[in-house]
Amino acid sequence: MGSPERIRNVARRVARWKAQGHQLVVVVSAMSGETNRLIALARDVSPQPDGRELDVMISTGEQVTIALLAMALKDIGVEARSYTGGQVKVLTDATYTKARILHIDESNMRRDLDKGTVVIVAGFQGVDEDGNITTLGRGGSDTSGVALAAALKAEECQIYTDVDGVYTTDPRIVPEARKLERVTFEEMLELASLGSKVLQIRSVEFAGKYKVKLRVLSSLEEEGKETSGTLITFEEDKNMEQPIISGIAFNRDEAKLTVLGVPDRPGIAYQILGPIAENNIDVDMIIQNVGHDGTTDFSFTVNRGDYARTRTMLEEQICPAVGARAINGDNKICKVSAVGVGMRSHPGVASKMFRTLAEEGINIQMISTSEIKISVVVDEKYLELAVRVLHRAFGLDQAP
Amino acid sequence: MGSPERIRNVARRVARWKAQGHQLVVVVSAMSGETNRLIALARDVSPQPDGRELDVMISTGEQVTIALLAMALKDIGVEARSYTGGQVKVLTDATYTKARILHIDESNMRRDLDKGTVVIVAGFQGVDEDGNITTLGRGGSDTSGVALAAALKAEECQIYTDVDGVYTTDPRIVPEARKLERVTFEEMLELASLGSKVLQIRSVEFAGKYKVKLRVLSSLEEEGKETSGTLITFEEDKNMEQPIISGIAFNRDEAKLTVLGVPDRPGIAYQILGPIAENNIDVDMIIQNVGHDGTTDFSFTVNRGDYARTRTMLEEQICPAVGARAINGDNKICKVSAVGVGMRSHPGVASKMFRTLAEEGINIQMISTSEIKISVVVDEKYLELAVRVLHRAFGLDQAP
Repeated sequence: MGSPERIRNVARRVARWKAQGHQLVVVVSAMSGETNRLIALARDVSPQPDGRELDVMISTGEQVTIALLAMALKDIGVEARSYTGGQVKVLTDATYTKARILHIDESNMRRDLDKGTVVIVAGFQGVDEDGNITTLGRGGSDTSGVALAAALKAEECQIYTDVDGVYTTDPRIVPEARKLERVTFEEMLELASLGSKVLQIRSVEFAGKYKVKLRVLSSLEEEGKETSGTLITFEEDKNMEQPIISGIAFNRDEAKLTVLGVPDRPGIAYQILGPIAENNIDVDMIIQNVGHDGTTDFSFTVNRGDYARTRTMLEEQICPAVGARAINGDNKICKVSAVGVGMRSHPGVASKMFRTLAEEGINIQMISTSEIKISVVVDEKYLELAVRVLHRAFGLDQAP
Repeated sequence: MGSPERIRNVARRVARWKAQGHQLVVVVSAMSGETNRLIALARDVSPQPDGRELDVMISTGEQVTIALLAMALKDIGVEARSYTGGQVKVLTDATYTKARILHIDESNMRRDLDKGTVVIVAGFQGVDEDGNITTLGRGGSDTSGVALAAALKAEECQIYTDVDGVYTTDPRIVPEARKLERVTFEEMLELASLGSKVLQIRSVEFAGKYKVKLRVLSSLEEEGKETSGTLITFEEDKNMEQPIISGIAFNRDEAKLTVLGVPDRPGIAYQILGPIAENNIDVDMIIQNVGHDGTTDFSFTVNRGDYARTRTMLEEQICPAVGARAINGDNKICKVSAVGVGMRSHPGVASKMFRTLAEEGINIQMISTSEIKISVVVDEKYLELAVRVLHRAFGLDQAP
């Protein structure tokens, strides 16, 4: 929802879906930059704005867009009606600025849909049980869309983004990257948590919980040239040879810390990571080697922006407390991951990954695996090379 | 509510009232320019924006300000809570963009006030009985303030404007103009309708209907240098010698049209003015002279912006239909009025006014009177002179 022109485009697209006989609920976000503008204005008045009042304020961003889209639709002869979160109503808990949806009343929307009216709903917002305005936090509009689709038992929830689907990897790094026709829900969850920016992980989790069929589409495509995006399904496609790996994800925003010579005794992980978690620092990978001589080395990764603060905490507070020998840190690392439900039934994915990286002389610093992904930490300078060679090694540049 | 700085100023002022032990409900308008920005954005998407959706959109202007003011108050340690029109709730009819208030639920506000919380309410807006957002039209924030004061039976409704009160006339024209300590409600109504821009006439009417004591104050005064503004009362002050005239109002935005040689028969006024009213042109003064020879001359004034359109209607449509002889028009006129409840008990105000103008060689083109005002139409070039000499003639430059 970038501009009046974009809004008119969206209206025309909605009109075409409507003409095909669909009942439509359209969930919109604020115009780009609007939420940040409002937050800056709030900070200008109060350095630490009150959460309740911040939500009253930033919820206006979506309120403006629902009205604009409804106007644009009526202008081209399509009956439409806008709803704020409170008007729907989308009931949330009272956790301002990051509320969770508790219940959605579908009666108003259903009445309009039955009359053939297109329903436009403000994403990102709701009301608590006392009628206070709440917002859902970053990515909240996607979450609203999925939650409404679940409440209305929609056929499909289409999420329009600035890319036309989920790719085998970032096409800016590997030009041969291909758009996936479909990806399983589990894979999408891993891809989202591993750095793919297509969908907010929270909305994917929500879709998983309520079994909502998601489709990622581009809002930027020209009229008549739209593609079908990527469908996120709950079942692996039985009719098709499932590729072993669906995509290569990566995350540059990482830093690694190692605590050396930690006494190898129970509770040591908690003693190290507890104070860090209390300071709201997210820890990603955690690795503890088998100890020897009664001590062990303990490594973990954090967001790069938290590196300095975490290192200071370790040096001044945690290491003296646990009696560690020394600290190593590196904020020039990255994480590269191979994701695919196919690896469940195909052994040897890990060894192929390690061999491929070894052949290029890329040293693996940390390894972490789950049932459908393998992540490695490597020096940041190898990021593009690692992604490229893995993409090729797993045949992702070839149509399946 | 011009800027973050202005909002912090308002917060400090509210805090001082609160510290004096008052219970406060603060009704705010949008930040300056915001409503116009939103309307322009709507027009950019749809040339004739749908009324319901326009209200959804422009009501966000006040929603932003209530949040900012509540934040600013909390920031200086004053408990405050914002309310949109719907949250109050301010129930209106469903006439989008110019709704009328039907009822105000005071229970939420009362609960907060009893707890010592300052209540901040978005002016200009409400909801209809189906929960659709409505707005009250131009000047709606003043009307909201008066309506809330009436519902809560407030001691006083203070309206903060960009002037520090009601003056005997515009100080830009007569530097000796004095601020009135008090003015009666009837006089204020006349002054508002005669061109004084201090208050919207609708909010004054509302205050009259519900007997709300109004005070006009400046929002621009420096801290510690605030004045007490002008009180608008319902009773003439019995303890004080009531001045005969309270103020000289004027309106430059006028044009005059005369239809000459109209047949002097019943229904002629309707035949002339009916089609004009149907085209939403406001007619102000209307004068019909005593006829002779079976014909009469019929004059009226309109807003200057409607002059060309009205003249065309008269020439092409109305005059041929009624058989008028000719049309005269003048869009370089102005209206100057003397207003005062004192003229009820003091005869001779009109003759003093006419004599004063005659002594300066100012020709009076039209005259219209009511119980508490006398208006004359004169050539626009005499406006400043007429206002100045009348202001002096009625002793308005002297403290009472």
